[in-house]
Amino acid sequence: MTLKVGVIGTGMIGQDHIRRITEVLAGAEVVAVTDANADVAAEVASRLKNATVHATGQDLIADPNVDAVIVCSWGPTHEEYVLASIAAGKPVFCEKPLATTTDACLRIIDAEVAAGRRLVQVGFMRRYDAAYRALKKVIDDGTVGAPLVYYSGHRNPSVPPSYTKDMAIVDTAVHDFDVSRWLLGEEFVAIRVLAAKPNSLGGDLQDPLLMIVETESGVLVNVETSVNIRYGYDIRGEVVGETGTAALADRGQVLLRSANHVGVGVPQDWRERFIAAYDTEFAEWIAGVTAGAGATGPSSWDGYAAQAVCDAGVAALHSGDRVEIVLAAKPALYS
Amino acid sequence: MTLKVGVIGTGMIGQDHIRRITEVLAGAEVVAVTDANADVAAEVASRLKNATVHATGQDLIADPNVDAVIVCSWGPTHEEYVLASIAAGKPVFCEKPLATTTDACLRIIDAEVAAGRRLVQVGFMRRYDAAYRALKKVIDDGTVGAPLVYYSGHRNPSVPPSYTKDMAIVDTAVHDFDVSRWLLGEEFVAIRVLAAKPNSLGGDLQDPLLMIVETESGVLVNVETSVNIRYGYDIRGEVVGETGTAALADRGQVLLRSANHVGVGVPQDWRERFIAAYDTEFAEWIAGVTAGAGATGPSSWDGYAAQAVCDAGVAALHSGDRVEIVLAAKPALYS
Amino acid sequence: MTLKVGVIGTGMIGQDHIRRITEVLAGAEVVAVTDANADVAAEVASRLKNATVHATGQDLIADPNVDAVIVCSWGPTHEEYVLASIAAGKPVFCEKPLATTTDACLRIIDAEVAAGRRLVQVGFMRRYDAAYRALKKVIDDGTVGAPLVYYSGHRNPSVPPSYTKDMAIVDTAVHDFDVSRWLLGEEFVAIRVLAAKPNSLGGDLQDPLLMIVETESGVLVNVETSVNIRYGYDIRGEVVGETGTAALADRGQVLLRSANHVGVGVPQDWRERFIAAYDTEFAEWIAGVTAGAGATGPSSWDGYAAQAVCDAGVAALHSGDRVEIVLAAKPALYS
Amino acid sequence: MTLKVGVIGTGMIGQDHIRRITEVLAGAEVVAVTDANADVAAEVASRLKNATVHATGQDLIADPNVDAVIVCSWGPTHEEYVLASIAAGKPVFCEKPLATTTDACLRIIDAEVAAGRRLVQVGFMRRYDAAYRALKKVIDDGTVGAPLVYYSGHRNPSVPPSYTKDMAIVDTAVHDFDVSRWLLGEEFVAIRVLAAKPNSLGGDLQDPLLMIVETESGVLVNVETSVNIRYGYDIRGEVVGETGTAALADRGQVLLRSANHVGVGVPQDWRERFIAAYDTEFAEWIAGVTAGAGATGPSSWDGYAAQAVCDAGVAALHSGDRVEIVLAAKPALYS
Repeated sequence: MTLKVGVIGTGMIGQDHIRRITEVLAGAEVVAVTDANADVAAEVASRLKNATVHATGQDLIADPNVDAVIVCSWGPTHEEYVLASIAAGKPVFCEKPLATTTDACLRIIDAEVAAGRRLVQVGFMRRYDAAYRALKKVIDDGTVGAPLVYYSGHRNPSVPPSYTKDMAIVDTAVHDFDVSRWLLGEEFVAIRVLAAKPNSLGGDLQDPLLMIVETESGVLVNVETSVNIRYGYDIRGEVVGETGTAALADRGQVLLRSANHVGVGVPQDWRERFIAAYDTEFAEWIAGVTAGAGATGPSSWDGYAAQAVCDAGVAALHSGDRVEIVLAAKPALYS
Repeated sequence: MTLKVGVIGTGMIGQDHIRRITEVLAGAEVVAVTDANADVAAEVASRLKNATVHATGQDLIADPNVDAVIVCSWGPTHEEYVLASIAAGKPVFCEKPLATTTDACLRIIDAEVAAGRRLVQVGFMRRYDAAYRALKKVIDDGTVGAPLVYYSGHRNPSVPPSYTKDMAIVDTAVHDFDVSRWLLGEEFVAIRVLAAKPNSLGGDLQDPLLMIVETESGVLVNVETSVNIRYGYDIRGEVVGETGTAALADRGQVLLRSANHVGVGVPQDWRERFIAAYDTEFAEWIAGVTAGAGATGPSSWDGYAAQAVCDAGVAALHSGDRVEIVLAAKPALYS
Repeated sequence: MTLKVGVIGTGMIGQDHIRRITEVLAGAEVVAVTDANADVAAEVASRLKNATVHATGQDLIADPNVDAVIVCSWGPTHEEYVLASIAAGKPVFCEKPLATTTDACLRIIDAEVAAGRRLVQVGFMRRYDAAYRALKKVIDDGTVGAPLVYYSGHRNPSVPPSYTKDMAIVDTAVHDFDVSRWLLGEEFVAIRVLAAKPNSLGGDLQDPLLMIVETESGVLVNVETSVNIRYGYDIRGEVVGETGTAALADRGQVLLRSANHVGVGVPQDWRERFIAAYDTEFAEWIAGVTAGAGATGPSSWDGYAAQAVCDAGVAALHSGDRVEIVLAAKPALYS
Repeated sequence: MTLKVGVIGTGMIGQDHIRRITEVLAGAEVVAVTDANADVAAEVASRLKNATVHATGQDLIADPNVDAVIVCSWGPTHEEYVLASIAAGKPVFCEKPLATTTDACLRIIDAEVAAGRRLVQVGFMRRYDAAYRALKKVIDDGTVGAPLVYYSGHRNPSVPPSYTKDMAIVDTAVHDFDVSRWLLGEEFVAIRVLAAKPNSLGGDLQDPLLMIVETESGVLVNVETSVNIRYGYDIRGEVVGETGTAALADRGQVLLRSANHVGVGVPQDWRERFIAAYDTEFAEWIAGVTAGAGATGPSSWDGYAAQAVCDAGVAALHSGDRVEIVLAAKPALYS
């Protein structure tokens, strides 16, 4: 059975997912598209075999030929399309953020709980990265004992001029928050944000930031965002356990001995680093939805929890204080 | 357009390719199967959507619904099926070896040259491995200057009791021969084979072997086969150039600090090491065939050249001498 | 000229320094010893060529045959012996701590300033470690741009039952404080201490601790002490600069491929890790003193500054607050 | 007791050993020097405390104030000075080669055997390198099972114009021959020498060379000399055992992340790589000689065996054939 997918939002990331479903992965085809810019949607559709162009996301969701929905539109529109997909009883893959406020996330959770099954998946693709999965296995196997500290380093060579102070938290560190929640299997209870001496290459930004996030059991998660560090796109992670540590290994394919150095390459951007994770993310989503299991990946609850940490992080950045993170009661659907 | 594929030979490797085409990759479906064991073929077909079971490989090749053929049957049958596919004008992917003698390889080359286009691809999957491709790019970019020596280490934890003395060359080192020909872009002209002190874990085998193969321009390729080395399936490669060296890097995803050691894992078998290369190999074959480009990967000529090195290697192992490798004239089709 | 040295305190560390001076290094000999336990002092002297045993440290310092003094006695006695050495105008090497209170450190500074020259050196041996020196060179050369964050990981396999809560700061982290001050060339202005989820192997200790120390210019120094981590004695350090990072490399001499792993060893104790640094420390002290340059290594000011960070750290550990570090005015002698 | 040493030959290497004994190590002093160039000897002596300048090496050896002799003069003079030292019953440290012919080596062996004790040590300093010692320990502990193959890579950035074809064997590979004999604890029985495609940066030299040397038990030692490889002075070694491999690890002190690369440095010359080994070599020689144990390091037999491999290697290079290595009977003194 081939899963018939409709895509809301055909910008860069939407087109990349369409390419992935059409040219790379087995099991799904894109049968409908829509975009705020109708011309873009039409152009994208013209390159597909049998794709209908819809005027609105709501129309696309209502199309009986669409089995499942992918939401890649502008963040503030996510809530509306996810809620409509739930109302239509259709599985929906929503790129992060799930919604731009925790209240909106809770509305989605309420709707999904009322629907009685997991229809929503959020695009936290790091959970599909082979290295993070291997790291989680080491933790879960107890190879280094119980985790006590986790270092999460998020380094970008540079950011565009539109990047604002809070984005280091809500756009950048949000990935570290989600992946460390998932690695540790715990919720966070508080966050501190400290600005280091600013990188002179970062203009007026407070960069780098160190964030210390505390889990329920007391694990300290130390997130570093360095978004103007030039040398590469480098995602680091090390869990300090009771008897050892486990870290994401360096990833270069070729060990080069040249000009008085020996070592491997560091990727320049996130596409190079995570392209395989995106493929795995969609392959598993397609397989789960097709098998009737619904969404098996990051849930509405995960989207909500990440948003709650971001809110507290932004407050902590502005106040300089330790800010508590208080979550709603977790519905059984997500246990 | 979906490529309709017929698979001759539905044993372990055939079933794995069927799974790959059916469940992993976009662009192709398996529409016909056959096997020397008809029950196995029927059982495999029963798990597919619309696959015909044929009594013989010749019937499968003749099936008008079959666009392209995959040959995974027993080595001695390869020549017959590849020739029949060429005769039918159908692209054919043939697992290694292309054929079991250089004469048979030459007959295939003659037929393909007569057909006037590249229809045949041989399953040397290492050329699709991301690490080897990165290594080739470093060589081709001139980062370490002209290659002068290439070390190719082929290490297996163990081999089955059926593994014979010559198989270290024709089954094991053949991959090293092909990938070093491809990395260096040159033919080989001679080979020496030296047996080291035998590994006591290898029974009566001469293991490890060191083979020194010479290219046209004088590059020395040093192949080590160690097929009882227990510690893992470890594929090593290092090119020594004029100004530096480049090697396949170690590949573990997790850097573990535990019990007075720090390091990464080594895979236990070839599946773990090369599964992604098989996926890429078929994705590119499907894409090339679908686009009408025919086979773009390892050619009949590559299959022939590898076989010629193996023949000389076996002779060198038995005689202890340096044995010259003399190839037929290379048809323009393969230039 | 051979430097004639007197050693106060002939316990484990004192005997190791005597061995170093007598058997390893050129340029000095031990001519006098004393210890709170006179029998131990006599036994140690009996193994030396021409060493006088003194009843007290004061006697040893007054001995006209003694050119320079090494203080390895119990911490609370350091102030007295260092002050007496200064009064006698003799160079004195004092194992850490310089003194057990900041007030005592300031009394030493006053005396040394009054003497008008650098007579005192404190035993912060990490500054003589080849790896730290290479790291400092990378920082000073600007290879990674201005430092913004420094991670200092201090991991011990275990600690004795006598190890108390505050010792993670005053005995363990004090090395990280000194070496990061030296690497960065800055004083600290504030410290926070956070206790992670406690390691169950550490009894009642708060272990691990994360300490965030701020420098004058805003660099954040993140010290982790994990003193029950079993896997080895592992000293980590990474400076995050504006354009890259530089870290202490793993140090194993042999890359072992065995049992599905590839990697290097981690030392089990501090002796293995720093023995060469102790040798260099004394070689340079002997050379400097012999050349008339006096002490060239860590100064009384360094001993005082480290003590001030420890005091603030202990206060921060107990209060949970950010504690400011306020230093006295720095005398010109130490600029 | 301080060992009183006389140094024959005060060129670059002789001066470095004098500095080592005088300024670095405990236990010895230089009391006499001589050199073919009397002005150089006088200048060197003027910087020492109490060193006599002798007109000839024979005079120096006869000086009753000289306890032990170091020979750093031109290779062809080694035999004469070593024989004279043996005749005088004085321990003698001889820089490599022991002598320039195997016959001369055998005359030294005969003299030493007649003297009845180990007086001669040859300057194969690699045996004192911490990394090689750690590698030998791994082999001897059986961590990777019995050794079957050993790769020895000897890479120099460049060589002077005076470097001739045979020197790749007698000056460069001789170190690999000695250290692999020592690591494996076996004699060699045959050698092949193969010239790879020549490095265009090496002028008329045959560079790189691959040498395959066979031990008594059948271990294959694969020596690569690459003496124009530019990227650094890189000494590689990997033993392939029955169950794993062990290699000299890369040695950089700082792991640098910069400009899309992560890795460590490679030294530029042999001094940087082996300076600590020279220190250890002399520290142990001084300790052994002072303790009356005589020479404990590489023996006259080792010097002879290395010379015999070199002779066979040169013959193999010129003939292209496998050349057998036949040694004299080994006197019990060296067992």
